[in-house]
Amino acid sequence: MTEAAEQAAGRRGRGGGGAARRAARSAVSVETARYISRNIPNLDVLNEEALSIIETNAETVLAEIGVNFVDNPEALDRWRAAGAEITGERVRIPRGLARQLCATAPSGFTQHARNPERNVEIGGRNLVLAPVYGPPFVRDAQSGRRYATMEDFRNFVKLGYMSKWLHHSGGTVCEPTDIAVNKRHLDMLQAHMLYSDKPFMGSVTEPVRAADSVEMAKLLFGSDFVDQNTVMTSLININSPLTFDSVMMGALEIYARANQACIISPFIVGGAMAPTTVAGTLTQVLAEVMAGVAYSQLVRPGAPVIFGAFVTSIDMNSGAPTFGTPEAALITYGAGQLARRMGLPYRSGGSFCGSKLPDAQAAYETANSLNMALLAGVNFMLHSCGWLEGGLVASYEKFVMDADQLGALHHLARGIDMSENGQAMNALREVGPGGHFLGCSHTQDNFKSAFWRSDLLDYKPFETWDEEGARDTQALASARVAKMLGDYQQPALDPAIAEAIQAFIDQRKASEPDAFG
Amino acid sequence: MTEAAEQAAGRRGRGGGGAARRAARSAVSVETARYISRNIPNLDVLNEEALSIIETNAETVLAEIGVNFVDNPEALDRWRAAGAEITGERVRIPRGLARQLCATAPSGFTQHARNPERNVEIGGRNLVLAPVYGPPFVRDAQSGRRYATMEDFRNFVKLGYMSKWLHHSGGTVCEPTDIAVNKRHLDMLQAHMLYSDKPFMGSVTEPVRAADSVEMAKLLFGSDFVDQNTVMTSLININSPLTFDSVMMGALEIYARANQACIISPFIVGGAMAPTTVAGTLTQVLAEVMAGVAYSQLVRPGAPVIFGAFVTSIDMNSGAPTFGTPEAALITYGAGQLARRMGLPYRSGGSFCGSKLPDAQAAYETANSLNMALLAGVNFMLHSCGWLEGGLVASYEKFVMDADQLGALHHLARGIDMSENGQAMNALREVGPGGHFLGCSHTQDNFKSAFWRSDLLDYKPFETWDEEGARDTQALASARVAKMLGDYQQPALDPAIAEAIQAFIDQRKASEPDAFG
Repeated sequence: MTEAAEQAAGRRGRGGGGAARRAARSAVSVETARYISRNIPNLDVLNEEALSIIETNAETVLAEIGVNFVDNPEALDRWRAAGAEITGERVRIPRGLARQLCATAPSGFTQHARNPERNVEIGGRNLVLAPVYGPPFVRDAQSGRRYATMEDFRNFVKLGYMSKWLHHSGGTVCEPTDIAVNKRHLDMLQAHMLYSDKPFMGSVTEPVRAADSVEMAKLLFGSDFVDQNTVMTSLININSPLTFDSVMMGALEIYARANQACIISPFIVGGAMAPTTVAGTLTQVLAEVMAGVAYSQLVRPGAPVIFGAFVTSIDMNSGAPTFGTPEAALITYGAGQLARRMGLPYRSGGSFCGSKLPDAQAAYETANSLNMALLAGVNFMLHSCGWLEGGLVASYEKFVMDADQLGALHHLARGIDMSENGQAMNALREVGPGGHFLGCSHTQDNFKSAFWRSDLLDYKPFETWDEEGARDTQALASARVAKMLGDYQQPALDPAIAEAIQAFIDQRKASEPDAFG
Repeated sequence: MTEAAEQAAGRRGRGGGGAARRAARSAVSVETARYISRNIPNLDVLNEEALSIIETNAETVLAEIGVNFVDNPEALDRWRAAGAEITGERVRIPRGLARQLCATAPSGFTQHARNPERNVEIGGRNLVLAPVYGPPFVRDAQSGRRYATMEDFRNFVKLGYMSKWLHHSGGTVCEPTDIAVNKRHLDMLQAHMLYSDKPFMGSVTEPVRAADSVEMAKLLFGSDFVDQNTVMTSLININSPLTFDSVMMGALEIYARANQACIISPFIVGGAMAPTTVAGTLTQVLAEVMAGVAYSQLVRPGAPVIFGAFVTSIDMNSGAPTFGTPEAALITYGAGQLARRMGLPYRSGGSFCGSKLPDAQAAYETANSLNMALLAGVNFMLHSCGWLEGGLVASYEKFVMDADQLGALHHLARGIDMSENGQAMNALREVGPGGHFLGCSHTQDNFKSAFWRSDLLDYKPFETWDEEGARDTQALASARVAKMLGDYQQPALDPAIAEAIQAFIDQRKASEPDAFG
């Protein structure tokens, strides 16, 4: 660590937010909505009896079938010590043990951003929105579909920073395939740290990359601050069915020990990695999450975790995963109930679609998924914008289209204002039968905030729209992408911190040869 | 009435379904799903206190502000006799009176189709889906936007007949602008009667046209049958705010006297015809529906009615109505609760959108609305497919796109199967950690019915899709429309009935000159 960085980190650690104060003084203000706090109920599709059946079945799965912890003797030792029965790599967990171990996990946590105004509270009635994660390809209206590069990655971080309804910068917004596999995590983290001031995710593709993520976070936030606070939420996928590999568990172990948050998430294409039925899939999801969360608490009791559920259905004709489907919705609703009964924050939902283009199919499927996620009580929604083609593609246009739709979720979650102004009896009296409300005083007082308004979609008269080129949503979004990237200005960051991060990256990159594939 | 028609009507009246039996014997079988019976809960956004406030406020509106019954001295006489206070055309309804009068309205009813297999039950936990209503324009991918004709009308009836997830043929699926205003209702009804065997709606644009609708229904179903059963559900819009005009009320009077069903529906662009707030709009909706339903029961106690709510929000920048918005969703959820507390079937929702094209905007807005309607407990969804450009346009492509999405609502409404097969413990045991479910016996037994599958959208691998022309959803739908219209075969109908209907139309058309505009 350079002296400047030590000083910067020290200042941050002591004073709590030197970089943040500088960011706040920055000339360019980018509006970001506060994370959603729901004032509407969740949709509970399972009754008490059904929930009990699923919970009992999940305990049966853990006790009688068990889960595999692969290539991970330390994990087996931990489980043995905790009272599980170990046979080879199979861990059978006696009834009640996993749930008991999960009890030390917090019901919610604060994830800090370098700009404290962007901190998010994950849990309770809140919903935090993060962008698409993982696509190896990108698509835009001009160039079509192509492999993603680091330039694309930076562009998506910039778009996320400028998107009002996104609370979180995410993680692998696309895979920068032009950078070596063993080094791209460094550039990705740097991009989140430099080009946004929203919270972000760490690397999970190797334990050492998780360790690098923690080190880089210490340079940004200060070492003490990271020891005492959660500054990263990272995605730990379970190899469904019932398998925990050593790469993902290695990353989990590093983050849990550092008190950093993990989403512990079954990754399920229904019918392939889980049974074809909703109740069967929910049973497996619950068993897997209980085993994963319990393990995180064996590593460090109290480590922050999120109950994850990534679930899609499958087209039994072609084997293709399908999105925005009713079965996936039922699983998402049910898993939310199970997560709340465990007292854990819940991750699910996203801008899921199978379409190759940001067309009507993409939007139907995405809107189905976004509405479901809001009503299912999701607390952290990864993939909330930009997902295309089953997650193979990050779409520039769909990123801004979806990000605009996220505004509707914020307004829906507000629920119904029953104040005197909300009741509007004065307006009803003033206008009376046959009148018009547009001019009445209540409307004048309320019109600015009364209705959510898309900032992107077309509300123009037909003739105007036609004269302006009869553009569809993709064309409107394409223009918006260009404008946002043109307007983008980097949030201020102490140059000493930026230099320290760069020095760390240079040193790490020099320490090993490039690996590809 | 011709002798043949009398005989046909008599047979139907006596035997109950001669035409239906012939239709059932027809060579071409068109699959139609049973109307939806929900096995999932409704989303209740208002608590008991909020509901009470709105109900009290609605009674205040009726008692203190009142409603206008325009150009309708008979209606004023009825209201006076019932105990309302009349001043000019203003009707002030004492607290409790409207609700008391509404109590004779049934909580649900059967609407009969000429094919009894297509009968629908409107009310309870059911949802009946009907297509778009009212657009003066149509759009298709080949010809763009143009005025609708009678040929378009017939085409939309045919598409509705062939759409598996549509339960109802609807009413004015588009305005046939090439037929005289005072005669087109005859051709429209004839099209529903001849080209479909699903239930349909009657004309409401003049009381005499409502009377024609009843007469034509008697030719189709038999006179006695229509006297004793509901065979039409028609749309009575309220001139919001708080105004009941004599045309709509005249149609309502005719249908109520004939024991035919009416949807009594405020038509509200929020901020223009109602206050800008959700609670204020709900208050107005409830007051208007209570006054309208009470009036229907003054005409004939027990007449079947539906609590309607057509509500959109407004773009306060341009004054354009906006669709698929969160405020409209909150109103739709809240109005559903109010309807259920009145014990009335509920109409709301639709494939609403403001977009000019069947693009992503159209699909986002539509999916928001369709999901909302399902979860709001809607019993009758008019406009459930085909709506474009704020209802100015019936879109061929969007009709089949939306109709396909309605399948997802059917599957979502099924809820979660908690049977032993649904729990799938055998599958979990058989497959175990690290296995694959595709080949297991439980999957083999269930895969055909496990997942909803779009019959239209693209699930192909990227390369196949690309080779086949990289088509977007509109292009896929355009091909589907052509295929459906090419495959269409008319459902069988007793020729004597068809002749009687034609003779009635000829006679009515000859009785007065054409009127346009």
